[in-house]
Amino acid sequence: MANLPKVAVIMGSDSDLPALEKGINLLKEFGIQVEAMVCSAHRTPERAAEFSKNAASNGFGVIIAAAGKAAHLPGVMAAFTTLPVIGIPVKSPFMDGLDSLLSIVQMPTGIPVATVGVDSSENAALLALQMIGIANEGISAKLAEYKKNMEAGVMRKNEKLQEKLKEI
Amino acid sequence: MANLPKVAVIMGSDSDLPALEKGINLLKEFGIQVEAMVCSAHRTPERAAEFSKNAASNGFGVIIAAAGKAAHLPGVMAAFTTLPVIGIPVKSPFMDGLDSLLSIVQMPTGIPVATVGVDSSENAALLALQMIGIANEGISAKLAEYKKNMEAGVMRKNEKLQEKLKEI
Amino acid sequence: MANLPKVAVIMGSDSDLPALEKGINLLKEFGIQVEAMVCSAHRTPERAAEFSKNAASNGFGVIIAAAGKAAHLPGVMAAFTTLPVIGIPVKSPFMDGLDSLLSIVQMPTGIPVATVGVDSSENAALLALQMIGIANEGISAKLAEYKKNMEAGVMRKNEKLQEKLKEI
Amino acid sequence: MANLPKVAVIMGSDSDLPALEKGINLLKEFGIQVEAMVCSAHRTPERAAEFSKNAASNGFGVIIAAAGKAAHLPGVMAAFTTLPVIGIPVKSPFMDGLDSLLSIVQMPTGIPVATVGVDSSENAALLALQMIGIANEGISAKLAEYKKNMEAGVMRKNEKLQEKLKEI
Amino acid sequence: MANLPKVAVIMGSDSDLPALEKGINLLKEFGIQVEAMVCSAHRTPERAAEFSKNAASNGFGVIIAAAGKAAHLPGVMAAFTTLPVIGIPVKSPFMDGLDSLLSIVQMPTGIPVATVGVDSSENAALLALQMIGIANEGISAKLAEYKKNMEAGVMRKNEKLQEKLKEI
Amino acid sequence: MANLPKVAVIMGSDSDLPALEKGINLLKEFGIQVEAMVCSAHRTPERAAEFSKNAASNGFGVIIAAAGKAAHLPGVMAAFTTLPVIGIPVKSPFMDGLDSLLSIVQMPTGIPVATVGVDSSENAALLALQMIGIANEGISAKLAEYKKNMEAGVMRKNEKLQEKLKEI
Amino acid sequence: MANLPKVAVIMGSDSDLPALEKGINLLKEFGIQVEAMVCSAHRTPERAAEFSKNAASNGFGVIIAAAGKAAHLPGVMAAFTTLPVIGIPVKSPFMDGLDSLLSIVQMPTGIPVATVGVDSSENAALLALQMIGIANEGISAKLAEYKKNMEAGVMRKNEKLQEKLKEI
Amino acid sequence: MANLPKVAVIMGSDSDLPALEKGINLLKEFGIQVEAMVCSAHRTPERAAEFSKNAASNGFGVIIAAAGKAAHLPGVMAAFTTLPVIGIPVKSPFMDGLDSLLSIVQMPTGIPVATVGVDSSENAALLALQMIGIANEGISAKLAEYKKNMEAGVMRKNEKLQEKLKEI
Repeated sequence: MANLPKVAVIMGSDSDLPALEKGINLLKEFGIQVEAMVCSAHRTPERAAEFSKNAASNGFGVIIAAAGKAAHLPGVMAAFTTLPVIGIPVKSPFMDGLDSLLSIVQMPTGIPVATVGVDSSENAALLALQMIGIANEGISAKLAEYKKNMEAGVMRKNEKLQEKLKEI
Repeated sequence: MANLPKVAVIMGSDSDLPALEKGINLLKEFGIQVEAMVCSAHRTPERAAEFSKNAASNGFGVIIAAAGKAAHLPGVMAAFTTLPVIGIPVKSPFMDGLDSLLSIVQMPTGIPVATVGVDSSENAALLALQMIGIANEGISAKLAEYKKNMEAGVMRKNEKLQEKLKEI
Repeated sequence: MANLPKVAVIMGSDSDLPALEKGINLLKEFGIQVEAMVCSAHRTPERAAEFSKNAASNGFGVIIAAAGKAAHLPGVMAAFTTLPVIGIPVKSPFMDGLDSLLSIVQMPTGIPVATVGVDSSENAALLALQMIGIANEGISAKLAEYKKNMEAGVMRKNEKLQEKLKEI
Repeated sequence: MANLPKVAVIMGSDSDLPALEKGINLLKEFGIQVEAMVCSAHRTPERAAEFSKNAASNGFGVIIAAAGKAAHLPGVMAAFTTLPVIGIPVKSPFMDGLDSLLSIVQMPTGIPVATVGVDSSENAALLALQMIGIANEGISAKLAEYKKNMEAGVMRKNEKLQEKLKEI
Repeated sequence: MANLPKVAVIMGSDSDLPALEKGINLLKEFGIQVEAMVCSAHRTPERAAEFSKNAASNGFGVIIAAAGKAAHLPGVMAAFTTLPVIGIPVKSPFMDGLDSLLSIVQMPTGIPVATVGVDSSENAALLALQMIGIANEGISAKLAEYKKNMEAGVMRKNEKLQEKLKEI
Repeated sequence: MANLPKVAVIMGSDSDLPALEKGINLLKEFGIQVEAMVCSAHRTPERAAEFSKNAASNGFGVIIAAAGKAAHLPGVMAAFTTLPVIGIPVKSPFMDGLDSLLSIVQMPTGIPVATVGVDSSENAALLALQMIGIANEGISAKLAEYKKNMEAGVMRKNEKLQEKLKEI
Repeated sequence: MANLPKVAVIMGSDSDLPALEKGINLLKEFGIQVEAMVCSAHRTPERAAEFSKNAASNGFGVIIAAAGKAAHLPGVMAAFTTLPVIGIPVKSPFMDGLDSLLSIVQMPTGIPVATVGVDSSENAALLALQMIGIANEGISAKLAEYKKNMEAGVMRKNEKLQEKLKEI
Repeated sequence: MANLPKVAVIMGSDSDLPALEKGINLLKEFGIQVEAMVCSAHRTPERAAEFSKNAASNGFGVIIAAAGKAAHLPGVMAAFTTLPVIGIPVKSPFMDGLDSLLSIVQMPTGIPVATVGVDSSENAALLALQMIGIANEGISAKLAEYKKNMEAGVMRKNEKLQEKLKEI
């Protein structure tokens, strides 16, 4: 899958990596090249703009940006590109991230951010894969397989439940 | 652009059309073939499942689903496909659609829904175009043009403002 | 009480069992046959639909479904049956389950879900018993006894309080 | 259907009737005898207690209670009976009825109230019918028919949508 | 102060005592006779009604009731008496007691509950004392002294702060 | 009832009078002398402090203060008196007065404000009467009568309902 | 007052002018030169950055930015300057501007935005004047006068109230 | 920088110092003289008024006030001065400080409080420095340097991230 676009994963601090690691690994398992970067909409706004402006020509297909509180990073990224930007609201100390969620999802007309649930890095990765999969059968076939594995996982959990029920 | 994927726009009632019309027209202006459908996650669940399961093989690249209150439609669509599903939370009579928003964005791991702002049908359309544009230069070029027009629109508004300021 | 309908308890993972165990045991104490199952509205949607469609003919009288976040499971169950479905909003990491509550209680017209409080598995069980008790005097008599025991429990707590008050 | 239990519909004022009329009519269409009453948890607490205590012996199978703001009526009703009580949170002037919803759904362990969505009198009626239908095949058969009609209604709306789409 | 009215402190469980102890002790320090009781609006509704109806003739001047979640106890108390009822919303596991607060403060016209902050048993006690103090100069004089002590407490904290500031 | 304490009703603007008129009239019907005043915690803070400090010696027994948004008036009043202060949260343009409610009810330990529901001027008046009634049998007897009239009002509404039900 | 810094008022559209006009006029009444501009954090991000970067050297002392929904404009302005930025959350169709408020006030450490109440353009103007007044006695003297006028305004409203009270 | 105005930091208790220490130290690093004080809007209202009235003539340029719950302190300070007042909403046990935030930010017209994020003492300090910097080039130059250091900090975090990424 030589021609697959890369996915960028942008975060505000290296300390966010553990929360995003599952999503990054998921993308890699699907054969996607991931570049991760610490960047801030407010502390390094020009670096953010620069990256976003050149993302398409640098081979990226999707930008994933995680941010908390007044979470402007995904929106700022989206301002400088026509690539789809996926926003991950990070759980903040205020109302479990209601601030992060609203700051990301309620974008003005013209500049969408594809928002996933609070702290949902795996769903951000899957959404990026689904976007790439529109025009790539290899990825969409792998997603179908992934879906089947999830289904099987539910069945295994049901078997465990039946075992546990015998004991109560 | 013969090979462009189609976009499906799913809504709960024909009375939702006015709210979605702008988004549908925007997709058409970009040359995308749109199929709209009334469908309910709860009243016609099998029809919803059937449509979603076959969407990819029927030539769809993206599914847009609008729903309000306990808004399950986008999630139910997402359960049956590996295509990206974009969810539009419809403003409901309860807390301006907080119920719709949370029911759509807080999806469990494994089944993402790309959520846009409350009642943001144009952003849903633009996001669908951005997804398609990952692998289609024609669409991404048009998006870049669209972005420039928005910028010019802001400048025109600024000129109007300067006129108005002279009068106050 | 040979002819009593069964009650189904549906959950998203076997790890939900501890939270639901009290409710399951309460149903059993009342002589109700309980079948519990792991099932997901999004990962195993067809299994969910299948179970719900056949629940009535398989001897079930009530379906209890617990779910968190964008909690679609009770609503999806309700879409495929005319049996009453009781929804338990599970406390999620976001606003203590406000997402779960709104996703369950705000169902569209035509497909009700009988919603109980967040994490209230015992109340779900009692509600199921009350529903069955409409046409079954044995169950309603036991419920009356249960109510008396609760009353006596309050009186015992009051006695303990009076003891404690002497010490402060 | 001579032996069908009656359904009580309790409201705080005669001015609530328009909001509850659809639900009352739906129950009547299913052949259920409905008795409606104005009653207040706080202004006529003894009348509320009296009614609830005797509801079962007076032939009622389900109590529906609608209330707004600090909506105690359904819970007070539930305190005096083992019949299932369905609570309808009425949209109040404060946060669209968030007060009503939380005051009804968050009942303490031991005294459930089956809560439906804000202002959802039809869903309250359908839920009452589903409860009665557990032990009454006539009602459950009618509910299955009602479900089919809803499905057909969605299909008709879809046809209308296709007509409208030709015009935009 | 022989003629001082008594104050009743009603709670749902003896396990609530620690949370209410400060308030009870404060009342006692002011020479008020306190009677505490475990009582439930839903599990022992008649006991609650009975107590409230007779409270005035039994020498009570104020009723303090603490409750959480769908917190009906203060309102139910208020329904049966013309004494002022003070409601303490107890912090619940749902949104830090937003359910408790709204269930208590949003009472319908005609039946007020004097609501204090979440978990504020001391303020409930002070409010009871202020009410009694309207017609009792001894109590109001003590309240004025209490106020002065609070002021002095702030001054002592300020002195501590100045000490600490020298060290940073 | 010569010795009855007066009640002060404080508001931020004369335009608040219509919202408070019912409460003022209710107090007058009970024979209470009411003095109303426009006063602001922020624009006339010294006037507010002055009034509150002297309220008790000027013959007031209760202070009612209505305020909206960052509603500091009741709390500022309470800071300068040992009289009970009743706070009426005024419905503001932000979340129906959630700001007003929280700014009034969440007072720090030591300075309670007896909070009633949003815009509940009648309940504020009744609460003031209940406070005065603790030591005044004339007022408490009138309150008992008022309660009976409310009960009769519910009965009349029920009769109207029965009439209306015949027509649907 | 020749050396007074200018104040910039930034808004997303010329249609925002009516909401901001009071604030602009207030600044002018104090002799401040105001420059207003339409600018968007997302549609004209470079224009926003450019303006902010040069604001100090262009003679501005304070930037006021009004924005709604995912309101990034004040934060983006603050990223490019060391001037104080005042953010006005604009009332949006979602929860009366809770999204706007949280997107503006919850800024990350290092980049503050001085947030005023929802739609409070006059307070934004007064705050700007207070900031300028720190080092300008002319402005601070005028602010003291403004404060006195507000106080007098309250007194006039009180007189009107006393008139009105005679009529009820 | 002999002529720099002082900054006052007001808090409700000496136990708030740890939360405010970073902000105080930041001010000192910029060469600002800080005076901190324990003061309460409700327990020592006259002390609060006194301090605020004389703050300008005592050499203060900005007042920072931190408060939680029904957080009236910043507003009360603002009532007595024409200096800018910065309010820090302190995280309270209720909805993570939503009460504190709304009590501070939603000030009435005429009395602004410059509100920063919940618990953001550093941003309060930076905002105070920006205000002083309007007329003081030394401070604004230091702020520009501070901004550069923040930018460099992000770059260092990015380098750490790249190291970590090699290990996953």
